[in-house]
Amino acid sequence: MATSKLGEHTSQQYEQELTNIRSKVIRMGGLVESQVEAGLKALVSSDGALGEEVATSDYKINTLEVEIDDACTRIIALRQPAASDLRVVVTVIKTITDLERIGDEAEKLGRLAVELAAVDREPGYFTQLKHLGEHVRAALRGALDALTRLDVDLAMKVALEDKMVDQEFDALMRQLITYMMEDPRSIPRSLQVMWCARALERIGDHCKNICEYVVYMVKGKDIRHTSMKNSEAAK
Amino acid sequence: MATSKLGEHTSQQYEQELTNIRSKVIRMGGLVESQVEAGLKALVSSDGALGEEVATSDYKINTLEVEIDDACTRIIALRQPAASDLRVVVTVIKTITDLERIGDEAEKLGRLAVELAAVDREPGYFTQLKHLGEHVRAALRGALDALTRLDVDLAMKVALEDKMVDQEFDALMRQLITYMMEDPRSIPRSLQVMWCARALERIGDHCKNICEYVVYMVKGKDIRHTSMKNSEAAK
Repeated sequence: MATSKLGEHTSQQYEQELTNIRSKVIRMGGLVESQVEAGLKALVSSDGALGEEVATSDYKINTLEVEIDDACTRIIALRQPAASDLRVVVTVIKTITDLERIGDEAEKLGRLAVELAAVDREPGYFTQLKHLGEHVRAALRGALDALTRLDVDLAMKVALEDKMVDQEFDALMRQLITYMMEDPRSIPRSLQVMWCARALERIGDHCKNICEYVVYMVKGKDIRHTSMKNSEAAK
Repeated sequence: MATSKLGEHTSQQYEQELTNIRSKVIRMGGLVESQVEAGLKALVSSDGALGEEVATSDYKINTLEVEIDDACTRIIALRQPAASDLRVVVTVIKTITDLERIGDEAEKLGRLAVELAAVDREPGYFTQLKHLGEHVRAALRGALDALTRLDVDLAMKVALEDKMVDQEFDALMRQLITYMMEDPRSIPRSLQVMWCARALERIGDHCKNICEYVVYMVKGKDIRHTSMKNSEAAK
């Protein structure tokens, strides 16, 4: 009886530890999302001070990454999770790497916002950049929702929509090239807008990775290099 | 006696499994390295056919990534590794993500080589790109050596040298901007060279990540967001 109670107690603690990891990941996702939002806002509203804040707040995300990493390693070592739990924990370890790198890209957006706020701007650039930013924000929201609710359908949807982000990125590139050719003096500024677009496109890629991890977490099926491509081809 | 033999047998099998994972990671590193080398060669020698080959061989790296991932998850589930082994296995899971993404960047180099081989080229670009490429190749070689030998000193050295790659990247950017401003017709081509440089710079970043993982694997000390920065600051 005592043993059984101990077992129960341990298992409750274990559940609690899993729940803690889960909520930390969700908190990290929320932090990353607000960094991306603030980075975009700083960009399109030429808010250098906000850009500066975004560029220097990355450490909060990094701290959470290290904490979650430690918690995951500890739970594997001490609790020897069963197959499905183990899959979740290993996938969390991978997911937070992508979250952390989205944070890095947000930091870049912040830094670029500071630089761009200091120069005159061509409103045309920013309209398209804002558009791309909205798509990427939607993808991030979708990826984080899919992660929180372990929603495979949503994850698949968001992962497939990454193509649209890529197309929008290409369109913006073409527009920037035209600007630069028409007015070579605009080149340095255009390139900065280009780096912003590149950062946004990479955020889209990371969202896709996270969605693929969600599918793996739930289904135990690795779609990274196989079925996702097939589903894309089937479209 | 029988149990002890069984124990020995199991432990030998376990050692064998760890060794298998290790050799697969080294093989994956070798593949990634040869892809980067071939991508660079295709670029600087305007070899479209080689570029095409690089752009379509990524699947080999991806297959290995999935295999290693599976082997790692299996070993954690079945063998319940002790703390230090577990650290190695979890770090392998992270390392191969970076290796796979270096493969993605090599694929990009291949695709860009195909595009650039089809147009006239300004030799000046390629000299600097080659230079940057050599630095990045050296970083990759160093990171893989550090990983194979679990050499912490080498890992620290390579991680700190990433700054030089970044500086070279910045210098190339400035040169490309000058070219573009002097001759706007060179803009589309310059941008392609710029994407090549960007891919190389990102490979450098991934090498740095791998080196940080090597330090963690050996020392159990997470330098990603802390000590590495301090050592950089101390320089």
